[in-house]
Amino acid sequence: MALTPYQQLEQEFRRLHAFRGATSVLRWDAAVMMPRGSADVRGEQLAALESECHALLTSPKVSRLIERSLANQAQLEDWQLANLREMRRERDHAIATPLSLVTRLAKATSLAEVRWLEAKQQDSFALFAPHLEEVVALTRDKAQVLSQALGLSPYDSLIDEFSPGFLSTEIDQLFRVVGRRLPSLIREAIELQATRPALPLTGKVGISKQRTLAIEVMRTIGFPFDRGRLDESDHPSTEGVPGDVRVTTRFDLNEPFTGLMGVLHEVGQAMYDLGLPEAWRDQPVGRDRGMAMEEGQSLLLEMVIGRSRPFLTWLRPLLEKHFGVSGPEWEVENLYQTLIRVRRGAIRVDADELTYPVHIMVRYELEKQILDGSLAVRDLPEAWKAGLDHRLGLRPANDAEGCLQDVHWAIGSFGYFPSYALGSFIAAQLYEGLRTEIETFDAEIAAGRFGGLFEWLRENVHGVGARVSSQELIKNATGKTLSAAPWLRYAEGKYLEERGA
Amino acid sequence: MALTPYQQLEQEFRRLHAFRGATSVLRWDAAVMMPRGSADVRGEQLAALESECHALLTSPKVSRLIERSLANQAQLEDWQLANLREMRRERDHAIATPLSLVTRLAKATSLAEVRWLEAKQQDSFALFAPHLEEVVALTRDKAQVLSQALGLSPYDSLIDEFSPGFLSTEIDQLFRVVGRRLPSLIREAIELQATRPALPLTGKVGISKQRTLAIEVMRTIGFPFDRGRLDESDHPSTEGVPGDVRVTTRFDLNEPFTGLMGVLHEVGQAMYDLGLPEAWRDQPVGRDRGMAMEEGQSLLLEMVIGRSRPFLTWLRPLLEKHFGVSGPEWEVENLYQTLIRVRRGAIRVDADELTYPVHIMVRYELEKQILDGSLAVRDLPEAWKAGLDHRLGLRPANDAEGCLQDVHWAIGSFGYFPSYALGSFIAAQLYEGLRTEIETFDAEIAAGRFGGLFEWLRENVHGVGARVSSQELIKNATGKTLSAAPWLRYAEGKYLEERGA
Repeated sequence: MALTPYQQLEQEFRRLHAFRGATSVLRWDAAVMMPRGSADVRGEQLAALESECHALLTSPKVSRLIERSLANQAQLEDWQLANLREMRRERDHAIATPLSLVTRLAKATSLAEVRWLEAKQQDSFALFAPHLEEVVALTRDKAQVLSQALGLSPYDSLIDEFSPGFLSTEIDQLFRVVGRRLPSLIREAIELQATRPALPLTGKVGISKQRTLAIEVMRTIGFPFDRGRLDESDHPSTEGVPGDVRVTTRFDLNEPFTGLMGVLHEVGQAMYDLGLPEAWRDQPVGRDRGMAMEEGQSLLLEMVIGRSRPFLTWLRPLLEKHFGVSGPEWEVENLYQTLIRVRRGAIRVDADELTYPVHIMVRYELEKQILDGSLAVRDLPEAWKAGLDHRLGLRPANDAEGCLQDVHWAIGSFGYFPSYALGSFIAAQLYEGLRTEIETFDAEIAAGRFGGLFEWLRENVHGVGARVSSQELIKNATGKTLSAAPWLRYAEGKYLEERGA
Repeated sequence: MALTPYQQLEQEFRRLHAFRGATSVLRWDAAVMMPRGSADVRGEQLAALESECHALLTSPKVSRLIERSLANQAQLEDWQLANLREMRRERDHAIATPLSLVTRLAKATSLAEVRWLEAKQQDSFALFAPHLEEVVALTRDKAQVLSQALGLSPYDSLIDEFSPGFLSTEIDQLFRVVGRRLPSLIREAIELQATRPALPLTGKVGISKQRTLAIEVMRTIGFPFDRGRLDESDHPSTEGVPGDVRVTTRFDLNEPFTGLMGVLHEVGQAMYDLGLPEAWRDQPVGRDRGMAMEEGQSLLLEMVIGRSRPFLTWLRPLLEKHFGVSGPEWEVENLYQTLIRVRRGAIRVDADELTYPVHIMVRYELEKQILDGSLAVRDLPEAWKAGLDHRLGLRPANDAEGCLQDVHWAIGSFGYFPSYALGSFIAAQLYEGLRTEIETFDAEIAAGRFGGLFEWLRENVHGVGARVSSQELIKNATGKTLSAAPWLRYAEGKYLEERGA
């Protein structure tokens, strides 16, 4: 029997899924295994695969099949309809960015990335500025065509690429509410923590011990090592596909929690990938719901659960077992105070849970202004310093610690930054939701039982895939669309708690 | 300026090269890194890439460009003409095996492989026979269409897929000459070696010590670790592309030379890949000249050079340094006698240099008869035993050690076996050639200087790529097309030498 147009579409997207899975494993290999001198060869392979994916999505055949499937929607079930909607979204994104624009952006960003690194090392924004201007100009072109295709504002259409379903008006509102409370919250938290000094964790802990602990933690959490790996790379990452998930972290001899927290962060995303709807795993509707939701899973495990007394209660004997450590500085309360310490600093990636959103808000405001032309690229360094000063009361000493610290804009990732903060808010709202449903949550975590947590997440988040929008998903899971209130409640509860509360 | 049809072809084949490189890294990953439970996912990725390569080669566009380029050959230079010829050869192979046949073969062989393994484990040919019959039938179909497309006999067209440029009439002649001398040569060698007993190499050598030695040997040989890796897998292999070559071996705690000899074998091929013409590295003319030539490079390094007194003279202090071994059994002459020991046995992969071609001749005769129908699949077990008995004076005890020992036929690799023996003959002929040109060869190897060897090989073999046919390459390098005489001279010299010669 001949396949229906919709069934043919599934075949095409199955092929797309295979190419993307191959791409992801090759990216993992580049970060973990590849010899230093092989970057050029790998670049050619990745470019060929990416242009193949682009060609598939923009082929007249796929568009014809989409139109014919849309005309026969009555014959499709819910999941299939949602799948068709996601297929169309991916097609629209691809068509709106023709290969010529993709190629020009790829060239401009790969040059800009090199210059950015030099500029950062030499603390010279002037080296980077013309390349950033070129990337901004091309990104504006891209946002313009995407905007028309998707029926979103230009900036929202950039967000849609990373975190579909969140509009900048919603983000403005979230940031307004959080931004109003945050300066005083940070001040109060720092003042309170000053009255509770934490003993330093001194001494080195061998990497192999850290790795063994990380693996035991991952096993207990439920990470399936017969369908995934843990390795080391310069930057923690999660690659692969459900069925072959590759987690990496970076262990630090002098910081026994750097590697483990990196693992928790990535395993949060990995468990998301592994919990995606199995029956749809090679279709667009079976994919995760974007960067913000991924970050939400990561932060829920790393920040909310990983830096909590129940988790540390379970972890403490494992630290003793694997690291051979004991003494007052390794007691639960001291570890907890150490891991939730709040410090104002200029560098985003070193920021704690409370000051992190500040860094995002500064970037969010600036990138919107750069894109709409109200801020000239040459004025970025000063605007950055002023923005951080205004929101955090801290002026970066130089541009290397200011607007040159992140690679994102150099590689054209505009619209990406908000997902970090959205992730925090999502994590807090999900956490509130699951705690009301799992009354014994703290006790379970303290006993190293993660089954209830992931059962809840699979039912409410992971297993949903991309069947509904981000906001619908959050509303179905927690009763409300995303708001700042749960995060503020969570942050105030955690960072302003009375001693002994 | 618009690209010429030939230039457009180069673009298409550059894409093909990128896909094949990606495929090869994914195969390496599957053997070395992939979690056990991820084979299905990987299978989908590899199948998608393979069918993409097939689609590219069989596209009307590529055929049209080939025809137009052929019509304008006058404008092409030598290398380009050779490249066009190789493009056409690859296209012809792909077109002659339509996707439907490829798919049927893939299904039949993947089932046959599973049944073959069961049959081997249970020593039950009956379990395997129907599946082998199915594979044979499909292979006959394939040989038939290939034969018409390539203008070769059906069996020769199968050989052409693995080792282009060798005809079965040539192989018949080589095997006739070698086969006449081999039984007596083996007998005389065994008798002579019986008078020179070798002291056994006892004691275990830790894997990490073996790895460290292997890496030092590879470095000295000239393997560039900034563009390649050494890892471990169940079966030694070479994957990747020039610029990112992945060698694997299998170390054995009780056999200190298993891993190292595996490394030499694979590094022989790896150095071939790394020495291919850089300017053509992403084009068909820049590829290696097929399985027989690859095997020739491997055997030259592992068997001819690796199992020689000069090499062992250089190696001995390294064994002492890395393994901490000494004593009479680790002296050069004892190592040499150990590593060139001749033993009649039923298993091909355990065979020594002298009995190995016998195993190939038996398989070569049998696969030709199976394909032309003069031998029924059901009669294979007995024909195998009789063949080995006739040529080696040894009857396998059962089919697991007989016709079920190799996977090749199960996976449809007919026409592959001869390349192993051709590789031996090629290695010997190249060796004779390079020794006449490099008079200090033995002294160089004994001093651990491999520069002269690989300079000669790059000029005469590696750097030629696929610019000329296999036989032309051999003739240009040694003055003659491939003959059995150099191998017989080499084997007689090595295995029948007078003591002290």
